[in-house]
Amino acid sequence: MNAFQASLPLTLDFEVGAIRRMGDKVAPFGTKVFLMVDPFLEGSEWVAQVTASFIERGIEYLEFYDIVPNPRHTTIDRAVDQVLRAGCDVVVAMGGGSAIDSAKAVAFVAVHGGNCWDYTERLGEEVRRPQRRGLPLLVVPTTSGTGTEATPFAVINNPELGLKCAIVNPFIYPDVALIDPQILVSKPPKLTALTAVDTFCHALEAYISIHCTPWVEMVALQAIRLFAANAQRCVEHGTDLEARANMAFASTLGGMAIAGAGVTVSHALGQPLGAMTDAPHGGTVAASTPHVIRWTLPVAAEKFATVAGILCPETLGLSVNERAERLPVILEQLFTTLGVTDTFCSYGLRPEQVDEFAHTVWTSFNQDLACHPKPINNQEEVAAIVRMCF
Amino acid sequence: MNAFQASLPLTLDFEVGAIRRMGDKVAPFGTKVFLMVDPFLEGSEWVAQVTASFIERGIEYLEFYDIVPNPRHTTIDRAVDQVLRAGCDVVVAMGGGSAIDSAKAVAFVAVHGGNCWDYTERLGEEVRRPQRRGLPLLVVPTTSGTGTEATPFAVINNPELGLKCAIVNPFIYPDVALIDPQILVSKPPKLTALTAVDTFCHALEAYISIHCTPWVEMVALQAIRLFAANAQRCVEHGTDLEARANMAFASTLGGMAIAGAGVTVSHALGQPLGAMTDAPHGGTVAASTPHVIRWTLPVAAEKFATVAGILCPETLGLSVNERAERLPVILEQLFTTLGVTDTFCSYGLRPEQVDEFAHTVWTSFNQDLACHPKPINNQEEVAAIVRMCF
Repeated sequence: MNAFQASLPLTLDFEVGAIRRMGDKVAPFGTKVFLMVDPFLEGSEWVAQVTASFIERGIEYLEFYDIVPNPRHTTIDRAVDQVLRAGCDVVVAMGGGSAIDSAKAVAFVAVHGGNCWDYTERLGEEVRRPQRRGLPLLVVPTTSGTGTEATPFAVINNPELGLKCAIVNPFIYPDVALIDPQILVSKPPKLTALTAVDTFCHALEAYISIHCTPWVEMVALQAIRLFAANAQRCVEHGTDLEARANMAFASTLGGMAIAGAGVTVSHALGQPLGAMTDAPHGGTVAASTPHVIRWTLPVAAEKFATVAGILCPETLGLSVNERAERLPVILEQLFTTLGVTDTFCSYGLRPEQVDEFAHTVWTSFNQDLACHPKPINNQEEVAAIVRMCF
Repeated sequence: MNAFQASLPLTLDFEVGAIRRMGDKVAPFGTKVFLMVDPFLEGSEWVAQVTASFIERGIEYLEFYDIVPNPRHTTIDRAVDQVLRAGCDVVVAMGGGSAIDSAKAVAFVAVHGGNCWDYTERLGEEVRRPQRRGLPLLVVPTTSGTGTEATPFAVINNPELGLKCAIVNPFIYPDVALIDPQILVSKPPKLTALTAVDTFCHALEAYISIHCTPWVEMVALQAIRLFAANAQRCVEHGTDLEARANMAFASTLGGMAIAGAGVTVSHALGQPLGAMTDAPHGGTVAASTPHVIRWTLPVAAEKFATVAGILCPETLGLSVNERAERLPVILEQLFTTLGVTDTFCSYGLRPEQVDEFAHTVWTSFNQDLACHPKPINNQEEVAAIVRMCF
């Protein structure tokens, strides 16, 4: 047995209509809220419900809507400044991954001081890694994809340096992730599909990671089961609260999986592709997954067979190797059904860019490549995988 | 979707040989350890390894071996007194459920003051329920059964009042559960089987409980999968570290399952039977389980079918109802294979005691009966179930 650790240092709180009781949820933690909200929610009934519940409980709040995709270090520092000047004692975030990542950084830096960039992991540089929590933090995810509510990571963008780095610290978990399926029903089918596929890839990649543990295996396979049973229902029947709740749970489990075992090749390719082409994250990750599986076979055949059996129970009569070999086709069909069909080519990557792209992957995403069960030994091997994804 | 919450407010730390590094594990939490050890370990190499690792790190410690099955309130209060007089700032427990339950209570009461009995849940009486943690607590389970390392419960016996009551408080979880499979290999086959069956029953009962949640379903079914794959290996090949580690993980998951959804009829019957006859806990619970399932069918047919499919994949071709109906027989065969074959009769319950026994169950274990998916309406129905178990 390999040694492993597991914990879930936050409370997951699933409840239809929960945001109407946000004041009750916040009350044990503080009296003055810094409310960070994704700008697409500005003026929405969801924000109105939350602020009404604060007023009802006599909780003060300060609203902050300056959230952009790939949260910038300067924005986070500005938010920290507002928190300190207003004397807020609890942070609440509503939105997608960027809002929640921003709030994780803000709550942490507000207590420990200085600039957020000093806390990010940068090779060879001095990194601040406090071993105490920041301000209490409650988060309300509005998409089911990133799972960032259940990870110790917060990705921060520094456009001046041209770098995206992450705070990685077990003390930046939220205290509570409040998942209200009612907020999720408003997501359009395309975004629902892309985020569902992202969740699936988190689970699959963590499961095949060389750092997979019995704990990660449990949460990853459950995320895949829930994805299999609910993703299409969410896309086709967006108002199905049960399916939305199940996909939200899958997304959180996907976050727990990558918190424990990291991601592998598909995310290592997908993330820089998104940065280069502005393609949606779930799509960039999905685009390579079947090809990466083919390339990885037979190294992780047993695990691929298990996933194939979950997604397509009709394959359960086949041998392990046959079932594993069926997985790429099963996924291509499934992603097509969900409307996720783009390729590296259709996202705008040009053949003459492959070497430069492979260089970025090899140098900036080496930690993800290193988790992959089939070793990747140099930039040329990365380029060969990228060419498969055209 | 029904609302649900989930968390795992402790670190699970699985490592072969971990107790040799106990000093490193304890160092972040304190400098003077109150070391509570099950008396069967007194003088063992395990205790020697732990204390040597303390000395190596310059950590002081005070040993305490006064642990009995069904920990007494007076013993716990005496331990608290020793903790306070010696100025210990961290508690470490090694042993079975009684040692860990005692330590949970000691660490809690040492900070919050007074007598431990005041913190137990007693109907209609004043109960102290502090909303802050006690002293840091690290526990090392030596059996794989109770799962108490992952529950917010500590059962305390008050022989003067003739009552066993529990502290139920989310702040009494240990900080760390250190699971070292090497300690588990010394357990004899019979105890290994009895504790494995207890774990299975925790998982099954929480899964069918009316309070089951998606979180509980995940951990309970994984516990059952691990039980199915490893219980017999542990009994037959006690030194198989992989199987021992997997059963230990199953036991912890079983604890998480009952922490989330409670136990049902089998535990409601098994606990007082154990108290009356001194029969082993796992055996008393197993003795009723197949009969309780037969009585409960078809109310929880789908869940019973799922469990049957895990324990006996050959049944997967059958209909849900057929598969569910097979579960009692599958379990009777499995328990027999494991050597767990006692009945209420062989444990010494006499037919003329049934009514009195049913009265105890109905009055003292009503909260467990209330979790059962098929309603139990009165003492006579309890007596009828008890008669099935003879």
